[in-house]
Amino acid sequence: MKIPAALKYSHVLLKQVVQRGDNVIDATMGNGNDTAFLAKLVGDHGNVYAFDIQDQALQKTKQRLIKSNLTKSVTLYHTGHQHILDTIGMTSISAAIFNLGYLPGGNKKIITRPTTTLSAIKQCLMILQKGGMIVLVLYYGHPGGKPEKNDVLQFASKLNQKQYTVLKYQFINQVNDPPILVAIQKL
Amino acid sequence: MKIPAALKYSHVLLKQVVQRGDNVIDATMGNGNDTAFLAKLVGDHGNVYAFDIQDQALQKTKQRLIKSNLTKSVTLYHTGHQHILDTIGMTSISAAIFNLGYLPGGNKKIITRPTTTLSAIKQCLMILQKGGMIVLVLYYGHPGGKPEKNDVLQFASKLNQKQYTVLKYQFINQVNDPPILVAIQKL
Repeated sequence: MKIPAALKYSHVLLKQVVQRGDNVIDATMGNGNDTAFLAKLVGDHGNVYAFDIQDQALQKTKQRLIKSNLTKSVTLYHTGHQHILDTIGMTSISAAIFNLGYLPGGNKKIITRPTTTLSAIKQCLMILQKGGMIVLVLYYGHPGGKPEKNDVLQFASKLNQKQYTVLKYQFINQVNDPPILVAIQKL
Repeated sequence: MKIPAALKYSHVLLKQVVQRGDNVIDATMGNGNDTAFLAKLVGDHGNVYAFDIQDQALQKTKQRLIKSNLTKSVTLYHTGHQHILDTIGMTSISAAIFNLGYLPGGNKKIITRPTTTLSAIKQCLMILQKGGMIVLVLYYGHPGGKPEKNDVLQFASKLNQKQYTVLKYQFINQVNDPPILVAIQKL
C-alpha cells in the first residue's frame, strides 16, 4: 500500500460517504473524471449535478459518460459553480467535489477564482446533509493559485468545530506544489 | 463514516502496511495501546520492540498484554528510544510508531524531547524496509510541545521525495491544538 496522493484520497473519502441513490455535486466538471466516479457511486437512482463554464469540459464529460454508460443519473450544467443554488435549488446533497485550478489540457488562463469558489463552497454547505462531505483538491502551482488556496484554507479553518470537521491532507516534502486536499464534513 | 482523527488514522495506516510476521517498533510505549495493536498485527511469529523510559509505562503495558494474551511477540525495553539501534541492532522493520508528548495519566513534566525524538526517528529510517512506514502522532499543547512539533515537521519536510513520501494529516478548524499525524513512507 502506498499513501494515496490528494486526488486519489479524495475518492477514498467520497466512496465512504456517498450511497446509492444520493444527490451529489461535481462543482468542477473538468474532464469528467470525478463526474463519472460519482455517477458510479450514486447509481441509476441517484443524481450527479455537474458544473463547468467551459464548453470543452461539457463535451469531454458527455463523451466520457456515454462511453461508460453512465449518463442516466448525470445532469451537466454549462454555468459557473457560483450558480449552484440558482440551478438545483435547496436539493439536499451528501457530497460535493471541487478540483480547484485550471482544466488539465485546456486553457491555463481560465482558472477558478477565490470569490466564486468561496461562494460555491458556502452554497454547498447550505444543502449538505449531516455526515455529508465537501472535498476540495487545491492545485495552486499556477499564477493565481496561491491566493485562492490561502482564501479557501482560511475560510475552512474558521468553520465551527461543533458543526464541521475540517481535515487538511498534504504531502509536505515535495517540490512543485503538490495539490492539497481539504475535506469538510458536517457533524 | 466520520473522518478519523490523527490517532485513529495512525492505526488505519499501520494496518495497511504491517503484515503478520513483521518486525515493528513502538517507540513510545505509554499505556501500551499501540504495543497491543501492533502485537495483533504481527501475530505470534512477528516481533514488537517497545521502548519507554518510565517504569509506569512498562507496568501498564505488561498488564495490558497479559490480559489480551499478546505477550508472545512483544519485548519491552526500559530505555529511551534514542537507544533503538543499540538495543535491537540493524533489524529490518516494516513500521514504527511514535506518540510524542507526555504519558496520558502520568507525570506531565516527563515529555519527549526534540533531540532524542529526532535521533530515534533517524535510527528507525535506517532500518525501515521499502514500503515501510514511520507514523508520528504529535501532541503539542503542553509546554515544550511546539518546539518539538516544529523540529519534527522541519526534519520530515526535508526528506528527499525520491526516497520518501511524507504526509501531514491534521484537523485545521479545532482549538486546543489537536494532534497532527505525520507519516513517512520509504519508497
